[in-house]
Amino acid sequence: MKQSRLFTRTLKELPKDETSFNAQTLIRAGFVDKLGAGIYTFLPLGLRVHNKICNIIRAEMDAIGGQEILMPALIPKKNWLTTERWDNFDALFKLIGGNQKEYGLGATHEEVVTPLLQKYILSYQDLSVAVYQIQTKFRNEPRAKAGLLRGREFSMKDLYSFHPDEEALKQYYKIVQKAYFKIFERCGLIDYTYLTYAAGGAFSKYSHEFQAICPGGEDTIHICDKCKIAINQEIIDQHHTCPSCDNSKLRTAKSVEIGNIFKLGTRFAKPFEVKYTDETGQEKDVVMGCYGIGPSRLMGAIVEILHDDKGIVWPQAIAPFSIHLLSFKQDDKATTLYQTLTTAGLEVFYDDRGGH
Amino acid sequence: MKQSRLFTRTLKELPKDETSFNAQTLIRAGFVDKLGAGIYTFLPLGLRVHNKICNIIRAEMDAIGGQEILMPALIPKKNWLTTERWDNFDALFKLIGGNQKEYGLGATHEEVVTPLLQKYILSYQDLSVAVYQIQTKFRNEPRAKAGLLRGREFSMKDLYSFHPDEEALKQYYKIVQKAYFKIFERCGLIDYTYLTYAAGGAFSKYSHEFQAICPGGEDTIHICDKCKIAINQEIIDQHHTCPSCDNSKLRTAKSVEIGNIFKLGTRFAKPFEVKYTDETGQEKDVVMGCYGIGPSRLMGAIVEILHDDKGIVWPQAIAPFSIHLLSFKQDDKATTLYQTLTTAGLEVFYDDRGGH
Repeated sequence: MKQSRLFTRTLKELPKDETSFNAQTLIRAGFVDKLGAGIYTFLPLGLRVHNKICNIIRAEMDAIGGQEILMPALIPKKNWLTTERWDNFDALFKLIGGNQKEYGLGATHEEVVTPLLQKYILSYQDLSVAVYQIQTKFRNEPRAKAGLLRGREFSMKDLYSFHPDEEALKQYYKIVQKAYFKIFERCGLIDYTYLTYAAGGAFSKYSHEFQAICPGGEDTIHICDKCKIAINQEIIDQHHTCPSCDNSKLRTAKSVEIGNIFKLGTRFAKPFEVKYTDETGQEKDVVMGCYGIGPSRLMGAIVEILHDDKGIVWPQAIAPFSIHLLSFKQDDKATTLYQTLTTAGLEVFYDDRGGH
Repeated sequence: MKQSRLFTRTLKELPKDETSFNAQTLIRAGFVDKLGAGIYTFLPLGLRVHNKICNIIRAEMDAIGGQEILMPALIPKKNWLTTERWDNFDALFKLIGGNQKEYGLGATHEEVVTPLLQKYILSYQDLSVAVYQIQTKFRNEPRAKAGLLRGREFSMKDLYSFHPDEEALKQYYKIVQKAYFKIFERCGLIDYTYLTYAAGGAFSKYSHEFQAICPGGEDTIHICDKCKIAINQEIIDQHHTCPSCDNSKLRTAKSVEIGNIFKLGTRFAKPFEVKYTDETGQEKDVVMGCYGIGPSRLMGAIVEILHDDKGIVWPQAIAPFSIHLLSFKQDDKATTLYQTLTTAGLEVFYDDRGGH
């Protein structure tokens, strides 16, 4: 792409209404624009980065058998009532359409994916199955001051898995865990990321977060250097030591949650009556897992974590371009080189504006 | 992809709560699932078709210099107040967040793109410029019974162009018109599609719709076979003859609007004060155009228009797969062929379920 054509430009000043490093820097560099608190437009360079992150996630989800779908954001009230979350999900944006029909704007999609799969799962032969989407989510966040780390509108990859029993869920949970580390490796954050014990809900003692060490992060983790895992604040308040080795010498760090995996068990399968017939003809409840990564938040985390004093340092796999070609003289040499590199399939950002 | 892995299956019966052919057929074939009136989930096969349509549109928008961005759906009330559309846009879904902050859910994006470009357009050197997005839109439709042809939530490609004067807008408008015909050609609808005179608003006598002849369509057009153009119902009520050649022998047909292009003039540039300095140092208003195609609606229109008595007939460019390979015997030959074809880069849907 020729830089002379790009409509954005870098700003001389940091935006005054942003306090987070990621938002300040991304806005200044012309990667995103702020429409409101926690609400951003992705500009051409930012969208390229965002889409590359999405494609890495997509490839790893496909590799573990995830089937991509796209669910709506307008979720009828009755679905939320079925799971008793209409009144109990604080961050749910609610709206009223024609004929007084009420919707909750998708903040998460168990209320859609569970009745969807209920239609298709009949017998043990239909299990296990995993579906995912990369989609825009909405959360009525009271505070949205962390830029892309906490959006009122943000992108999310949410994977949901459906299994005949707890053992199959447990196996798949491990597979997703590995896939997540691959994603964070490809996005340049592997050295900063800890599998982190978190609260598990009714079905499982623990869930797991993927927390990346980050001075600008909103979370605090407690790292066990023996196990190379971490414990989040909520769990450490209850447990005080490493749940794996009982080590009490834990190292505390600021962090940002860049992913989470959760054994849902029958929490959603029960109310939506997702059952299957097993090999012996017996009817059983399906057990579920859910697994999230927010591409837009991940992009913000990468900016926070991987930068130097000159600004953002994108890992090559997600940089908007592979090559930045600058022409100091206004002659044909650079243009010829640009064409050669582009024809060879390289992504070149060609600063043809002259006047350097 | 192996068909044994696909979680969806074709349904024996047509869904009873749908009256439109496109929704009945797409649901039955497992391409989409209905969550509510005008609200659909795209299932794996449907998402593949949808994404191929999006990629065709994207390629043609890039080819005419469109720069892709992604704007939010949560649009603060103040933006709608600036253009006086908060109370005058019937189909706007409104919602209230924390601190009583109000938003309109993006039904169109002039209220976002105009102040965005205002930040970057300073002088004549920054013009002309065109940006587009492919994004989910929301409209509080009173009736949503036409399946993908009229969604409460639907995908939209919206392109916005910014020009120094009316002449530059006029030229770009023609360029987009050609690009649109290329898109409809690649999607298999060129033989059914008419450039159609429609009401133009304050700045221009006419706008143009792209109407495809379709028995299940909600619109009526009046075709001038001399000019090979059409006139929509609203314009024919005022004008009675072809606006181009004054022909009064017009042929009437049911149709679906699959695109529209509109000269906005200064309708949005004025309230958001998008001005530029011309070559002589004079300050002038920017003039704008907007251009829409709904990929999800286009997908519905293709189903309505291109089908036979056995069901959907996808044009090859947007079919979910290029090859459907069926194995009648459960031996290795088909599997070997599947691997050979897949390795050769072909998209094969391999029915490996046996038992045929």
